[in-house]
Amino acid sequence: MKTLVIGANGKIGRQLCELAARGGIPLRAMIRDSDQQPWFHEHGIETVIADLEGDMRQAFYACDQVIFTAGSGPHTGADKTLLIDLYGAIRAVDRAVEVGLERFIMVSALRASDPLAAPEKLRPYLAAKFAADAYLRCARIPHVILKPGRLTDEPATRQVATSLSHAETNEVSRGNVAHALLYLAQARMLKNREFDLLDGQSSIAMALL
Amino acid sequence: MKTLVIGANGKIGRQLCELAARGGIPLRAMIRDSDQQPWFHEHGIETVIADLEGDMRQAFYACDQVIFTAGSGPHTGADKTLLIDLYGAIRAVDRAVEVGLERFIMVSALRASDPLAAPEKLRPYLAAKFAADAYLRCARIPHVILKPGRLTDEPATRQVATSLSHAETNEVSRGNVAHALLYLAQARMLKNREFDLLDGQSSIAMALL
Repeated sequence: MKTLVIGANGKIGRQLCELAARGGIPLRAMIRDSDQQPWFHEHGIETVIADLEGDMRQAFYACDQVIFTAGSGPHTGADKTLLIDLYGAIRAVDRAVEVGLERFIMVSALRASDPLAAPEKLRPYLAAKFAADAYLRCARIPHVILKPGRLTDEPATRQVATSLSHAETNEVSRGNVAHALLYLAQARMLKNREFDLLDGQSSIAMALL
Repeated sequence: MKTLVIGANGKIGRQLCELAARGGIPLRAMIRDSDQQPWFHEHGIETVIADLEGDMRQAFYACDQVIFTAGSGPHTGADKTLLIDLYGAIRAVDRAVEVGLERFIMVSALRASDPLAAPEKLRPYLAAKFAADAYLRCARIPHVILKPGRLTDEPATRQVATSLSHAETNEVSRGNVAHALLYLAQARMLKNREFDLLDGQSSIAMALL
């Protein structure tokens, strides 16, 4: 069971890859250029070089599922939100369907299901995530959609909540997201499920039941 | 058979409304504020005030179908492309499904099915149109998707083509788009169809067969 990680060089992606390597869980890191390779090879992680805006079909071969944790980030404009967070995700879903993968695990965002309820500044980004999630739900591939709250760099506690009403915060550490993704990668029975994710008081296995 | 026109105050929208009024075809123009009303009332066109980023449910009542020809236009940023061209369209589709309308006619764009094949500058906009079209295809409502080429203000010839290979240009006049939409509004047998639209040599009824 090999997992392709799209966005492997991001902050969540690297933590996820490192955890998987440590646990002996097979994974292929999709990265954009060879400058990013040494870190992965030092950690014993297989890489493939491909671009969300380019041809990426070969990256998917001989994988069983994909985790999409790519994002254009807060320092680029909404143009890149459209091309990466929205259309890059759409293209990844299309490739996964074409190649016949078993499952697509999408990192979305808290409140992506209701962008206009969020603060104005966040709405365009959440609209992109809404549409990418909708595209995945409609595609012919089983999916899991994980919707983390505001991301922090706090240490991973591995204690989470999946509902704002059970959480004391609207935040979640990137480490906890990485642990949740590692769990989801192995929880093959989870199909067509969606979870919010916040720092909380439950173990990941209990929260993502 | 009443048609709700979303984006009625745009350049295509106004021409469409005027043609419909002249032909006695029932239509309701959705506009953003009361300053826009006088022009419509002078032409005998029913209006409803609603906003794609606000509550617009009442605009849909007692209509049978919707034409979506709204767009944030070239003078706003990609933020508005996400909120209007993408998420506004998505919300309109959701309302149309909820209210149980018979058909959704979407004005998309030439090459929306392959954004990365277009010049770089156009790609973010086409990615938004791709995702809006995909959302509509997946929704529980019959649809028609019209994909005009580069829009001009040339006079309407009512002569069009639906394939680049049959057209002498990649352009189409807004007047020809308005005439095509008026035809589609009345061509109730057309469901789950998609057409490119360019200036050409065929009558609209022959081209949109």
